Amino acid sequence: MDVLALSIQALADRIRARAISIPELVGEVLREIRNRDPELNAYVTICEDGVQHQAKRLQAEIDRGRWRGPLHGIPIAVKDMVFTRGCRTTMGSKVYAHFVPDDDATVIRKLKRAGAVIIGKTNTHEFAFGPTGDRSLIGPTRNPFDKRKISGGSSGGSGVAVAARLAFAAVGTDTGGSIRIPASANGIVGLKPTFGLVSRSGVFPLSHSLDHVGPMTRDVIDNALLLQAMVGFDPKDPHSVRKRREDYLRGIGRSIRGRTVGVSAYFSERVEAEVLRALEKAIDVFEALGAKIERLDLRPEFEAIVNAQQVILQAEAYAVHETTVREHPDLLDPEVYERLVKSKEVSGYKYVQAMQKRKEYIHLLNKTFEKIDVLLTPTLPILPPEIGQREVNAQWKEPVREALLRFTSPFNYTGHPSLSIPCGWSKSGLPIGCQLVGQFYHEALLYQFAYAFEKARE
Amino acid sequence: MDVLALSIQALADRIRARAISIPELVGEVLREIRNRDPELNAYVTICEDGVQHQAKRLQAEIDRGRWRGPLHGIPIAVKDMVFTRGCRTTMGSKVYAHFVPDDDATVIRKLKRAGAVIIGKTNTHEFAFGPTGDRSLIGPTRNPFDKRKISGGSSGGSGVAVAARLAFAAVGTDTGGSIRIPASANGIVGLKPTFGLVSRSGVFPLSHSLDHVGPMTRDVIDNALLLQAMVGFDPKDPHSVRKRREDYLRGIGRSIRGRTVGVSAYFSERVEAEVLRALEKAIDVFEALGAKIERLDLRPEFEAIVNAQQVILQAEAYAVHETTVREHPDLLDPEVYERLVKSKEVSGYKYVQAMQKRKEYIHLLNKTFEKIDVLLTPTLPILPPEIGQREVNAQWKEPVREALLRFTSPFNYTGHPSLSIPCGWSKSGLPIGCQLVGQFYHEALLYQFAYAFEKARE
Repeated sequence: MDVLALSIQALADRIRARAISIPELVGEVLREIRNRDPELNAYVTICEDGVQHQAKRLQAEIDRGRWRGPLHGIPIAVKDMVFTRGCRTTMGSKVYAHFVPDDDATVIRKLKRAGAVIIGKTNTHEFAFGPTGDRSLIGPTRNPFDKRKISGGSSGGSGVAVAARLAFAAVGTDTGGSIRIPASANGIVGLKPTFGLVSRSGVFPLSHSLDHVGPMTRDVIDNALLLQAMVGFDPKDPHSVRKRREDYLRGIGRSIRGRTVGVSAYFSERVEAEVLRALEKAIDVFEALGAKIERLDLRPEFEAIVNAQQVILQAEAYAVHETTVREHPDLLDPEVYERLVKSKEVSGYKYVQAMQKRKEYIHLLNKTFEKIDVLLTPTLPILPPEIGQREVNAQWKEPVREALLRFTSPFNYTGHPSLSIPCGWSKSGLPIGCQLVGQFYHEALLYQFAYAFEKARE
Repeated sequence: MDVLALSIQALADRIRARAISIPELVGEVLREIRNRDPELNAYVTICEDGVQHQAKRLQAEIDRGRWRGPLHGIPIAVKDMVFTRGCRTTMGSKVYAHFVPDDDATVIRKLKRAGAVIIGKTNTHEFAFGPTGDRSLIGPTRNPFDKRKISGGSSGGSGVAVAARLAFAAVGTDTGGSIRIPASANGIVGLKPTFGLVSRSGVFPLSHSLDHVGPMTRDVIDNALLLQAMVGFDPKDPHSVRKRREDYLRGIGRSIRGRTVGVSAYFSERVEAEVLRALEKAIDVFEALGAKIERLDLRPEFEAIVNAQQVILQAEAYAVHETTVREHPDLLDPEVYERLVKSKEVSGYKYVQAMQKRKEYIHLLNKTFEKIDVLLTPTLPILPPEIGQREVNAQWKEPVREALLRFTSPFNYTGHPSLSIPCGWSKSGLPIGCQLVGQFYHEALLYQFAYAFEKARE
């Protein structure tokens, strides 16, 4: 049995039954990272200090009969934008090459309390400011299915670590698609939760009104298990929402018969043929599962939303990085530096207008979700391009950046929960992801659809 | 007896006792406007249609024994930024020279319900975008104490109408000082209430996060009477707050002995000698009334706040006026046009930073209000300059605009309630105003201080 291939759920049973020892498990993951990560470049830092101590302490609890729950003893990776006490956190940047936080981010504290072992910090596009995952202080992360291809980003290291079995799950952050893009590119499950559901306190900001934190896992149940531990009101995040605790696994195994899947032509335009075929097959699967397909016209809204999201992102990102751009231009990756400098030019009034339009579009999307249960889109309109590639290699012209963000970024602007799940393979052996989007706080329903889909594909 | 010189309180008694008839009262005010307004230019439009009908209807109520309260039958003026059903509302601009609203602003509906008679629309600096009150489609409003001097703005017509007895009270709007500046310049009482207390629905926006609506009156009690009718939660204003109804007159006549007045050197710098003397006399009056004087150092904060307020104002104002600037540059006053065009250049990231700093400074000021009951400042550092004058004529160099806004605009940024009250006269016979600022929702306390001061000066 290859322990590293197990789902969290399967692993948890074995840990609880003392069939696997946590220190040995951690040792095995660390060995795998040492052997295989040099060519993948998923990890920036292994949290060597304390990780085995923590593993022993957690094992001692098991030995005493205390089991914290399904994350007890599970080695997970954390994107290098999320502060980890005593373990270097670089933001993928030379500027923070030696930064060791004094404190854990709220979400890390929650995961540790649930028993998770933070095994290392995963590569991120510098300051999470890019969807390709190929610009950071340690260079590009490589796609495990074709090492010339990008991991996707910005949570590229997290995506690759989970896909390549160098961690059982990972924490990512998502401002325009940074969880869902690498989830899609690496054939895993990635959730950008509803805005405000998971605290960003202790997470280095990129764009305070667009930033989200969420789980990246190999399957749907594991994703729900992680989310369960990550959510919760946090007064330290001004956008954190008070919500009653709920069971995110409650939809797992329940039928979606009679439910409605929305699709829109907007999400089929400028899409590579193989991706489109995967989407159409996904529609067939949902129909076979008894769901109704509802065709919607969402083009004008979504074109405006994509632009507004970029305006907000740029203004808020430059507000964060103004000092760094001025004081350490030499330490920044040249491409990231150039995009930051360009962000400075966004007008105040355009930001104000983009923020004012926001309520209107949220209302519009909420209205849409009165007619459908979930919206189904491809996560990416293209297959993972090559590392360093900046123009799409398709029947239309478009910067790779814009193509990667086109279907994911609208839901950072509106805040709706969005889940990327694997939904196919290209002939060349690259993963294809589909995105399920739901009404605010309908994460459990997204998992219900995703699990039914996952089972049907098996 | 000169009926036009009466306070609202005194007038209300006579109306209730049928010693004054409302239609006659309205007629008298209209006559006075026709006689004296041509040289003051306080009114843009007299709401002739319906005003006498309304007066008769209100008188019939009195005759039947129904009295709505102290505003029953009181003729009041309304700044031409506030929508009045069936009565032209120009925003002081040729762009809206023929605009007649279909609906009353929420605050007008409330005042009408309280029995007020909306007699006319008062001049405003075009789109309320200027503190001098000398740029509008009908030209400058003139200071009744010296017709070569400005009325102050942007609610200049409201200030002059109330001071010159062409209305018993007026509604103003205040984004950087636009109620308090003309209140000071015309020797009347003007309140910018706590942000969110008075609805802005139906008020043409200048800067949605800085705009306030408030009362302008001849004395403190009248001001409280107007506020009483104007407040209230309104779902149509997204910033409106839910507050329990309270009695804004409850502090009137109560001692301020043992209470604390804060003063800061920041509000004595770059201040004309005569204004400084008036401030010092005001401090003496408060001390004589038994208040303690607490000296604070607020300079660094307030310098930053003044800048941040301007950044927000410009970005939000251009977001409102973008289309007008593009489509009707010829209809805009050239100076207003030029300032709007300059506002376009404010960076998005600076707006974001100014908004992020906001909470911090609000917190800081809240902390200050734990040590003091009210902050006392001059309303304006200078005496009203001449119409068209753009540089201060003082011992320092400063644009008139910046000087006029320097002490008032910080409280639009933080949202604290601020009341301008008359506190002296220049040798040349121009009024001088002092500003009292309080903790959020402490309007009744401001009135308590202001009334004690007003009585002591008599």
